[in-house]
Amino acid sequence: MPKYMDIASLLLALDLGGTAVFAMSGAWVGVKHRLDAFGVCVLAFVAGNAGGMLRDVLIGAVPPVAFRGWQYVTISLLAGLVTFVWHPRLERLHTPILIFDAAGLGLFSVSGTQKALAYGANPLIAALLGMLTGIGGGMLRDVLVREIPTVLRKDLYALAALAGAGVVVGGPLLHLPPIVSTIGGAALCVAVRLVAIHRGWGLPTPDHPFHF
Amino acid sequence: MPKYMDIASLLLALDLGGTAVFAMSGAWVGVKHRLDAFGVCVLAFVAGNAGGMLRDVLIGAVPPVAFRGWQYVTISLLAGLVTFVWHPRLERLHTPILIFDAAGLGLFSVSGTQKALAYGANPLIAALLGMLTGIGGGMLRDVLVREIPTVLRKDLYALAALAGAGVVVGGPLLHLPPIVSTIGGAALCVAVRLVAIHRGWGLPTPDHPFHF
Amino acid sequence: MPKYMDIASLLLALDLGGTAVFAMSGAWVGVKHRLDAFGVCVLAFVAGNAGGMLRDVLIGAVPPVAFRGWQYVTISLLAGLVTFVWHPRLERLHTPILIFDAAGLGLFSVSGTQKALAYGANPLIAALLGMLTGIGGGMLRDVLVREIPTVLRKDLYALAALAGAGVVVGGPLLHLPPIVSTIGGAALCVAVRLVAIHRGWGLPTPDHPFHF
Repeated sequence: MPKYMDIASLLLALDLGGTAVFAMSGAWVGVKHRLDAFGVCVLAFVAGNAGGMLRDVLIGAVPPVAFRGWQYVTISLLAGLVTFVWHPRLERLHTPILIFDAAGLGLFSVSGTQKALAYGANPLIAALLGMLTGIGGGMLRDVLVREIPTVLRKDLYALAALAGAGVVVGGPLLHLPPIVSTIGGAALCVAVRLVAIHRGWGLPTPDHPFHF
Repeated sequence: MPKYMDIASLLLALDLGGTAVFAMSGAWVGVKHRLDAFGVCVLAFVAGNAGGMLRDVLIGAVPPVAFRGWQYVTISLLAGLVTFVWHPRLERLHTPILIFDAAGLGLFSVSGTQKALAYGANPLIAALLGMLTGIGGGMLRDVLVREIPTVLRKDLYALAALAGAGVVVGGPLLHLPPIVSTIGGAALCVAVRLVAIHRGWGLPTPDHPFHF
Repeated sequence: MPKYMDIASLLLALDLGGTAVFAMSGAWVGVKHRLDAFGVCVLAFVAGNAGGMLRDVLIGAVPPVAFRGWQYVTISLLAGLVTFVWHPRLERLHTPILIFDAAGLGLFSVSGTQKALAYGANPLIAALLGMLTGIGGGMLRDVLVREIPTVLRKDLYALAALAGAGVVVGGPLLHLPPIVSTIGGAALCVAVRLVAIHRGWGLPTPDHPFHF
């Protein structure tokens, strides 16, 4: 029983960590667009939580998990305020932030997929909802500052999330124990994302499509 | 019983057809804005399904119908990929696509109205939800690429949907059998839309209002 | 019993009044962006109702209150049409509209907080949902016309709403009777908003932050 508690606490800590990193990305975008302190905090909250909130509304798990306690709101606002106040000093943290962001993406897509499965979604839908958990916050963040969401334009970002989610839904078909497909999915997502950043990988665009 | 099955299958086929046409419109907008292949597929899914998903969330029918099986997702992604790959050859299909789009609008507004009525909405709200089913996907599609939704600016698009929805909610008051008001509503919507395209009809704007 | 009815009717009237004022603000933005009559009405409805609809979807109170009867839709569309037709004459009503808008903000944030509490939200979340009720409509209004929401950029708008919501959730801790914290919260919100307009108060921005 204490062991189970430990794992639950660990998962909550990881989830809050992912929320904090995503919230910092939102606050950063808010600072770049010269929003005021309230706007920066809203973007922090949105980037950190909107993906999971969309998932929860779509599967009927209301109120969303971000609104069931005080932790998600508090950590998002803290991340927003820290970024607002110390943003000049955070510029040099570019690389660490990209790495933490990849970790957040892996965690969110895997946990989002599992929650969707637990609510009865079929594997295809669960993987899409897992991906939405990972990318939804960043999409709404971009819409609020009048940008076309980055994830729709470049980088292997969504595909990394989808790869991780795919491992989670595919694991049972290969008789993998849940713990393996969970860790494996998150690890695959992080790996794809980091390699894509390093190599500059992207998806085909209308100007540079595959050739048929 | 087999007869009922046939009608249900026919309705599903029509609904999937509407989804496919709307998804192509979304993919087309994505290609025009030079999104990557993932972005084009997201816009296809959004344009084809977001209207019905909004309706379902608002009436409490979660998970939305688009997330209950694999058909809506699959047909949307197929429409997105086909448009992404063959968009240069699809340019000349402009007129057929407008006609199919009108058909999709008629179908979505009528089926959306009926679903809202089935969930207990009053006639006014049901008609609005039917209209939302028809126009919601295109609105979110436009917001994601940073455009003011076309439907808010020009054309008799929403009004065509509302006319069709009005027939569905008004039919019982005139003691019309459901099948008549359903087909009649969809036909009226398509007719209004096509005549409006042909004649260039639009609604008054602040610069060209009615005179009082 | 008649007394209770009177209070319920009064609250409904105030709520509809807030909806009408917010709807006029939405219609106004639509006119400024040269939307057609339908677009102006959509923006009126969105500005007047989207905040409460978001709150209702997030706490699981579907269908949202705006879709349970005909009053909210009707008053929103009337406000939209009146603004569309007479907008040249409404220009000179700038100051009264700001005052009514402050009243709507106070009312919405207080009633939104109370509804969230009634659905079991904790005080922190209830206050945030109350604030969302007050500012959500204006945010979606701005997104639809491709503007960064005003509330994220300037003015003490959201903070006024949050102050009012804070009184509602803090009242019971101070053993205030509900009627006192309700009226006090709305009054505080209106007062903060009007003083902020008068004095030109705003929150710190990245260019003019507090100094640490």
